[in-house]
Amino acid sequence: MEKRNILLVGAGGVAHVAAHKFAQNNDLFGNTYLASRSLDSCEQVLESIERKKNYKDTSKKIQAMQVDALNIPEMIELMKYLKISITVNLASSFCNMSILEACIETGSAYIDTAIHEEPYKVCEDPPWYANYEWKRKDRCRSRSITAILGAGFDPGVVNAYAAYAKKHFFDTIDTIDIMDVNAGSHGKYFATNFDPEINFREFVKVWTWIDKKWVCKPIHSEKKVYKFPVVGKQTIYLTGHDEIHSLSKNIDANSIRFWMGFSDHYLNCFNVLKNIGLLSEKPVKTAEGLEVVPLKVVKACLPDPKTLASDYIGNTCIGDLVIGTKDGRKKKLLIYNICDHKVCYEEVESQAISYTAGVPAVATAILIARGDWDVKKMTNVEELDPDPFLDLLKNIGLPTETIETSYSRGTLKFSKK
Amino acid sequence: MEKRNILLVGAGGVAHVAAHKFAQNNDLFGNTYLASRSLDSCEQVLESIERKKNYKDTSKKIQAMQVDALNIPEMIELMKYLKISITVNLASSFCNMSILEACIETGSAYIDTAIHEEPYKVCEDPPWYANYEWKRKDRCRSRSITAILGAGFDPGVVNAYAAYAKKHFFDTIDTIDIMDVNAGSHGKYFATNFDPEINFREFVKVWTWIDKKWVCKPIHSEKKVYKFPVVGKQTIYLTGHDEIHSLSKNIDANSIRFWMGFSDHYLNCFNVLKNIGLLSEKPVKTAEGLEVVPLKVVKACLPDPKTLASDYIGNTCIGDLVIGTKDGRKKKLLIYNICDHKVCYEEVESQAISYTAGVPAVATAILIARGDWDVKKMTNVEELDPDPFLDLLKNIGLPTETIETSYSRGTLKFSKK
Repeated sequence: MEKRNILLVGAGGVAHVAAHKFAQNNDLFGNTYLASRSLDSCEQVLESIERKKNYKDTSKKIQAMQVDALNIPEMIELMKYLKISITVNLASSFCNMSILEACIETGSAYIDTAIHEEPYKVCEDPPWYANYEWKRKDRCRSRSITAILGAGFDPGVVNAYAAYAKKHFFDTIDTIDIMDVNAGSHGKYFATNFDPEINFREFVKVWTWIDKKWVCKPIHSEKKVYKFPVVGKQTIYLTGHDEIHSLSKNIDANSIRFWMGFSDHYLNCFNVLKNIGLLSEKPVKTAEGLEVVPLKVVKACLPDPKTLASDYIGNTCIGDLVIGTKDGRKKKLLIYNICDHKVCYEEVESQAISYTAGVPAVATAILIARGDWDVKKMTNVEELDPDPFLDLLKNIGLPTETIETSYSRGTLKFSKK
Repeated sequence: MEKRNILLVGAGGVAHVAAHKFAQNNDLFGNTYLASRSLDSCEQVLESIERKKNYKDTSKKIQAMQVDALNIPEMIELMKYLKISITVNLASSFCNMSILEACIETGSAYIDTAIHEEPYKVCEDPPWYANYEWKRKDRCRSRSITAILGAGFDPGVVNAYAAYAKKHFFDTIDTIDIMDVNAGSHGKYFATNFDPEINFREFVKVWTWIDKKWVCKPIHSEKKVYKFPVVGKQTIYLTGHDEIHSLSKNIDANSIRFWMGFSDHYLNCFNVLKNIGLLSEKPVKTAEGLEVVPLKVVKACLPDPKTLASDYIGNTCIGDLVIGTKDGRKKKLLIYNICDHKVCYEEVESQAISYTAGVPAVATAILIARGDWDVKKMTNVEELDPDPFLDLLKNIGLPTETIETSYSRGTLKFSKK
C-alpha cells in the first residue's frame, strides 16, 4: 500500500510541534506539506526542524505552502494537486469547517484539535459539536471519510483517558473531572500560551455536565485546590471546554467537568482587562474616530506566545480524575501526563502547552496511516480504542501515568499503582 | 473703568464648572465667551447653566465659540474680535503655549490651572515651568501682561496655602506636604476623574523636592497612611506634581512633596494596564496591521469622566501639611479644603475634582478684574497675596480650614484651631 501524503495546515505553536513530530516519523508517510497563510511562518518552522536535526529520513523534507484555509476551492485545488490523503488541521479553529469541507470533497482523512468557532460567537450552546462538525457526520460516512475530531491533548488524550478508564478500570463511572494545570513559568508579567484572541474566548461562561444535564455557570465562580503529582497543590477553576460536548454523549457518566488551573496573578490581570472591556471582540471608537477591537490591541501588547518557549520552566499536568466502581467497590483513579517545558524546548523548540496539543495529532495521523484508527467516518477520540493511541504516545513523548487514590476523608493520599 | 471681557477656553469638566461660576458672577465682567474645538461641547455646558438657573444677571448670557486653541493666529483673531481682556485657559495642557502666546500678542491677561505638556514628553525635568511658561516671563513684563500660572486647586489653592502659612503662621518652614485625596466613589469598576490620557501621564516618575534638592523616584514607591479630617484614614503615595516645580523656587522650605491618595483597587488596575503596556502613548501594530495607541483604546473603553458626576458621592480633601517653627516653637499645621461631590453636582452638575480645579480659576479672574492680582507680569500663585484669594474662595464654594496637630509621638491627634 502506498504511503499517505500529509497536509499540515497552520504554522502556529501547535503546528510547529506537529511538524517536528512528522519529521521525526517521516518514514511512515509519503510527502508532508506545511501550509498556512504566511509562507514565512512555515519556513521558520522548517528552519527549526533543521536546527534540531529532527528529520528521521533526511531525504524527505517537509515542504512549505501558502494557502488561505478559509478558501475552500483553494484548499481543494492544493490538496488535489499534492495528492493529500491525511489533513491535519492545526490552524485557527475558525477554519475547521472550510478545511473539513475540502477533505470531504477530496477524500482526505481529517484531524483537528479544537472545536469549530465562529468569530462573533463564544462558548456556544451544548453540545457545541452538533452546531458544526456533527452536521457533517452523514457525509463523512457516505464518502468513507475518516474524520477524527479534537485529537490534541484536551480535547484528545483526555477523551482517550476516559475511554481507557471505562475499558480497563471501571464498571460504572460517576464523575470524570478533567484537570488541566500549567505549573510552568515563562518569566513575563502576563502572557497567554497561545493566541490571546482564542485563549480569552474560552473564559466567558461555563457549560458543564452535572447529573446528566447541561448546566451553565459564571466563569471562575467555582474553584478547588487539588494536590497533583509532580506539580503539587494547585487551584483549579470550573471551566467550559470542548471535550465535555462529546464525552457527555459518548461516555456514560453522571457528571463530566473540566477544571483549569489559574494563578491569582493571572486571574487578577484577566479580570482587570475584562472588567474594563479590553477583552471585548466588539470594536470601540477612539476620540480620534479610529475603530478598533480592544482584544486585538491587548494581543498586540502581549508577548508573542512563540517567544515564551525558550525561557519556559516547570511542568504541565493534565489528566482525568475518574470516580466510579469496579467489582462493586468504589474507586478513584487519576490518569494523567506530566510534560516538562524545558524538555519540550530542547526537543522541538516549543513549550509544553503546544507540545501536548501537537504530538497527539501526529499520533492520530500515524494510527490512521497504520489502519488502527482509519474508521471511515466522523468520530470523537473517546469512540476509538484508546490502547494503540496511548501506547504510541508513550513512545513519542507523552507517557500516561495512573494513580489510584484512597477513599479516606480529608486530604487525598496518592499511592502509585 | 470698563468691565473686562472674558474668554474661557475649553469645554471639559473644569471649564464646565468655571462657566457656571462665571455665570453666577457675571455682574463683575463684561461679555463672557466659552470657546473650544467643539461647539457642541460648549453648548452642552451652556444648557447646564440654564438648567441650574446659574446666571446672576440673566440678561448677560455666555456665548459659545468654536476655536482651535493650538492655532495662534486663529486665537488672536478671535480675541481681538471679541475684545478679550482676561483669558482663562481650561483646555488640554497641550494648549498652554499657544493660548499664552495669543494673550501676549493681544494684551489679554492669562490664567491656567496646569503646567504645559508636550504630547510625547511626560514628567519633565525640574523645574518644569522653566522649560515653557517661565521663558515668557520677560515678554509678559515688557508688555504688562498679567499671567497667573497654575490657578486651580493643585496647583493653585495649595500654592496659596503655602504662602498663607508663611504669611500668618510660620517663621521658618521645614516641610510642606501637599496631600490630595479623593475619598469619593463613582460606583464604576474603574474610571479616571478627568481625561485618562492626561491622568495617567502623571504617574510615570516622581520628581520631588527633598532637603533643597530635586530627587527622582519610581512611581508609587513611597506611601504613608494619614488620618485626614472628614475623610479619615487614607493611603497616600509620593507623586510628582506641577506645584513643586514653582514652590521649590518661591517658598523657602527644606522639602516640598506631593502625595496623592490611591485605593488598592485603583493601583491594581493601573499596574495591570501599565505592566501590559496598555498605558503607552506609543503606537503598536495589530496582527491586521492597524497602528493604534494603546492608551487611546483604554480611554475609549473607560467611562467618559463627564458621566461620573451624577452618581458621585463622598468628599475630597486637599491641603498642605506644613511643618516649621513659629516664635521658636515647633509647629505642624494642616491647611485644607473639604469638597462634597454631591453638593457640587447639585450646584453645577459636576463632581468635586472638576469643581475644586475650576472655581479657583474664576476667583483668579475676579481678583484680576478687581485689581488685587492684576500684577502686569507672569507669576505663580504663591507669589501673590493669599488673603484676598482665600477670602473670595470661602464665599464661592471652597472654604479653607486649618487644624494644628500636636507633636506627640504615635498617632497624630487633631485639635480644631
